Amino acid sequence: MPRKILVIGAGKSSYYLFDYLLSKAQEEELELTIADIRPENISPDIANHPRCTVIKLDIFKDADRKNAIDNASIVVSMLPASLHIKIAKDCLQYGKHLVTASYVSPELKVLDKQVKAAGLIFMNEIGLDPGIDHMSAMQILDGIRKKGGKLILFESFCGGLVAPESDNNLWNYKFTWNPRNVMIAGQGGTAKFIQEGTYKYIPYHKLFRRTEFLEIEGYGRFEAYANRDSLKYRESYGLQDALTLYRGTIRRVGFSRAWNIFVQLGMTDDSYAIENSEGMSYRQFTNLFLPYSPTDSVELKLRLYLKIDQDDIMWEKLLELHLFDDQKKISLKNATPAQILQKILEESWTLDEQDKDMIVMYHKFGFELGEKRHQIDANMVVLGKDREHTAMAKMVGLPVAMAALLILNKKIIGTGVRIPIQEEVYAPILSELKKYGINFKEYHVPYLGYNPDFVAS
Amino acid sequence: MPRKILVIGAGKSSYYLFDYLLSKAQEEELELTIADIRPENISPDIANHPRCTVIKLDIFKDADRKNAIDNASIVVSMLPASLHIKIAKDCLQYGKHLVTASYVSPELKVLDKQVKAAGLIFMNEIGLDPGIDHMSAMQILDGIRKKGGKLILFESFCGGLVAPESDNNLWNYKFTWNPRNVMIAGQGGTAKFIQEGTYKYIPYHKLFRRTEFLEIEGYGRFEAYANRDSLKYRESYGLQDALTLYRGTIRRVGFSRAWNIFVQLGMTDDSYAIENSEGMSYRQFTNLFLPYSPTDSVELKLRLYLKIDQDDIMWEKLLELHLFDDQKKISLKNATPAQILQKILEESWTLDEQDKDMIVMYHKFGFELGEKRHQIDANMVVLGKDREHTAMAKMVGLPVAMAALLILNKKIIGTGVRIPIQEEVYAPILSELKKYGINFKEYHVPYLGYNPDFVAS
Repeated sequence: MPRKILVIGAGKSSYYLFDYLLSKAQEEELELTIADIRPENISPDIANHPRCTVIKLDIFKDADRKNAIDNASIVVSMLPASLHIKIAKDCLQYGKHLVTASYVSPELKVLDKQVKAAGLIFMNEIGLDPGIDHMSAMQILDGIRKKGGKLILFESFCGGLVAPESDNNLWNYKFTWNPRNVMIAGQGGTAKFIQEGTYKYIPYHKLFRRTEFLEIEGYGRFEAYANRDSLKYRESYGLQDALTLYRGTIRRVGFSRAWNIFVQLGMTDDSYAIENSEGMSYRQFTNLFLPYSPTDSVELKLRLYLKIDQDDIMWEKLLELHLFDDQKKISLKNATPAQILQKILEESWTLDEQDKDMIVMYHKFGFELGEKRHQIDANMVVLGKDREHTAMAKMVGLPVAMAALLILNKKIIGTGVRIPIQEEVYAPILSELKKYGINFKEYHVPYLGYNPDFVAS
Repeated sequence: MPRKILVIGAGKSSYYLFDYLLSKAQEEELELTIADIRPENISPDIANHPRCTVIKLDIFKDADRKNAIDNASIVVSMLPASLHIKIAKDCLQYGKHLVTASYVSPELKVLDKQVKAAGLIFMNEIGLDPGIDHMSAMQILDGIRKKGGKLILFESFCGGLVAPESDNNLWNYKFTWNPRNVMIAGQGGTAKFIQEGTYKYIPYHKLFRRTEFLEIEGYGRFEAYANRDSLKYRESYGLQDALTLYRGTIRRVGFSRAWNIFVQLGMTDDSYAIENSEGMSYRQFTNLFLPYSPTDSVELKLRLYLKIDQDDIMWEKLLELHLFDDQKKISLKNATPAQILQKILEESWTLDEQDKDMIVMYHKFGFELGEKRHQIDANMVVLGKDREHTAMAKMVGLPVAMAALLILNKKIIGTGVRIPIQEEVYAPILSELKKYGINFKEYHVPYLGYNPDFVAS
C-alpha cells in the first residue's frame, strides 16, 4: 500500500521538496498530495506527475482540512509559521507525524507531552536557517565532544545573497527571500552575545557598525552583523560553558555600512505610519528624515547630517536607489518608513529571471583537547540555478522532504516536538544533502578566538 | 460654613500647594485636609496650621477613601497619575470637583459626558508642564487671534535645570524632578513635528543631535531637543493651519551632545535586564557596550568607538561620572541599563541642600497680520530657594491650588474633563502667579520662522 505524504501550502520553497519526493515515489511507494488555496500556481511538471495529486484546500474550512489530514500517512506544513498550530492539532487528533521548516512557537512547544504520549514526531526548524545550521553545527559539536574536546567558542553565520555572476549592483545584494525580514532585521531588541566570558550588548542603531569579517576560499570576503539572540540554542547545543557564543547574518563587505545610513535616518522604522505617504516622491520621503532648510538641497543636507563625502562609495549606493528622485512616487497609503523603503529597494534589488542566488554558511568551533586549543572552521556556499530554482528554496525544501521520508521509514524515531539536533536526524540528512551539492568544507586552523594568548583584558 | 479642600497625596510638589491654600484659609474660609499614606512626612508648619487637618489614608481602602471624598467640598489629587481614576470615579459618585496636575488619561477622558451631566469640573494638566505652558501659550495665541492675526508658527520649550549659582558640574545639569523621566526621555517612539508645512521625523538615536538653540536675556544660551509628539495639542490650541509646530525640552548647551554618548552606547535602554548586574563595577558596566579586546582599555575602546578625542570636553564629562571606575559597584539586581545609569548619574547629579533649581520656559509665536509676518517670543525663568523649596514644586503646586480655589469660588464654571486652555482659567491664574514671581517676558521680534524670505525649498 503506498504511503501518502500530504504537503499543505505550495509556496516559493516547495519546488525542491516536491521534486525530491516525486523522484523517490516509485522506489519508496509514495503518493504525494499537494493541498493549496491556489493549486493552479503549482508547476505542471509537478502537478502532472503520475504519483502526485493536487487538491484545492482552504485550511480555514475545518472539515476539508481534517479530512485531508486524516487521509495522509504524514503531513508537511509549508504554511506561514503562525498557521502551523492549526495543522498540528489535527495531526494530534488523527495520529499523524508533522514536519515544518519553522521555528517552534510557544504554543507548539506546549504540545510536546501530548505528542510524545501519542507516539508522534513533530519535526520543526528543518529548513535552511533554522535547519541545516542546526544539523551541520551539531554534527561537528558532537564529533568534538566524542573525542573528549571541551567547547569554548561557537560562532555561526548564515546569509542569503546574490551569486557572484549575478552580482551587478553597488550594494552586492538582492532580495532572495522575504524582503520584509531584511527590512526589520535587528529590530525588536538589543543584540546580545558572549565574547570571552563577557556579555556584550549592541543597540540596533549600532548593529551595522559592529561587523565581523569572514573569508571563504574562492568567494572572497564577507561581513556579518550579530543576530538578536546568540544565546538561543545555548542549552540545546550543550554550550553552557562556552566562553564565546555568537550568531550572525552574512552580507558582502560594505553592505552594513551603507544599510546603517537607512538606520541612522530612521527609514527602517516600522513602528508608525506616515499619513500622507501616498503620492509622495522618493525625494520627499528622504527629506522627512532631514532637518528643514529653505536653501540647502536634500542631497547636501543628507551628506552633512551623516558626514558622507561626495566621492564616498556610500553616496553612489544611495544614488543608485533613486532616493533623491522627485518624479518617482510612493504608491503606498499610510505606510511605515520600512514599508516605503522596501518598495524603493525592491525596484533595485529584485532578482532578474536568470539571476542566481547564493547561500553562505560559516561555523567556527573553538575547543580544548589535550591541554591545547584548537579551531575548526566549516563553511558552505550553494548557488541557485535561476530566479525560480533558488539555492534558498533547495536548501529549505530538501531537508524537509528528507525528514518526512526518514520518519515514514522509521529511520527517525524519537517522538515529541523536536528540532534536528540529534544524530539520528542530522547524520542521514547531511549525508543525503551531499548528493545534491550541499556540502560543508572543514578546515582545522590554529585557535584564533578573541584572546588566544590569554592577555589580561 | 467653611469650605473643605481635600488634597490626596502629599508628595514633593505639595508644599507650595498647601502653603498657598493655608495663606488664603482665613479670608476664604477654607479648611484644608491632607490625606496621605505617610502623614508623618508633612512638614510641621503645614501640619500644625490651625486650619489644616492631616489624616492617614490608604487609598486602596475603599470605605476610607470614599468617606474622605464625601466629606470634602472639592478634591485635589496629587497621587501618581495612574491612580487618579480611582479618585475621579468617587468624585463622580459624590458630586465633587477634582483638580490634578497630570495628563488626561484615556480612561479619564471617557468620563467627560458623565462629568458634564453631573455639573462637575475635573480640571487636569494644571501644573507646570503640562499646565503653565498651556495657559501662557493660550493667552498669547488668543490675543493674536483677537487682533485678527493668523498663526503660522508655534514652538514651545520647557526645561527643569539647575540655577546658575548652583551649576557646578560639567554637564550643567542636576536632577530636579523624577530622574526616571530624564533617563527614558525620547524613548517609545519617533519624534514627530511640522516645519514649514513639512512633516519631520527624528529617530531616538538622532534626537540629541538635532537640537535648536534658544537665547534668554541674562541667562545666556540654551538648547532644546524635540519632544515625541509636537502635534498633541494642535487641535486644542486651534493650530490646524500652522506651518510649524514644535515642542521641545530645554537643556544647557552641550548636554545633548554628551547625553548622546549614552544613547549611542545603549546605556539608556530600558527594555531588557542585565542578569549579572549586581556587584558589577562601573567599568564593567561600560564595557558591556564596547567591542571585546584582549589588549585595549575600556577608555580607548570607547574613545575609538564614538570618535571622542582625549581633549574633548565630552571626555571630561564621562570621567566626572566615574564611568571607568573599577572599584565603584552597581548595587542593583537584574537592572536595565537605564536603571543602572540612573544610579550612576544620581551620584553626581543630585541637588545639594542649598542648591537651587531653575525652570525655563520659552514660546515662539509666528503670525500674519495686515499682510506682514510678525513674531512674539515669550519666556520665563524661575529660580528655586533650596532643595526643599524648588521652583519646580512651586510651579506645579501654585496653579493647582489657585484652580481649586477658583472652582470653589465659581470663577471657573465650565464643566467636564478639562485642561486649562480657556480664558476663564488662564487669565485669573496667570495674573495671580505674577504675584509669586512667575511672569513671562514678551518680545516682539522680526519674524524669523525657518523660511522668512519664502525661498523655495
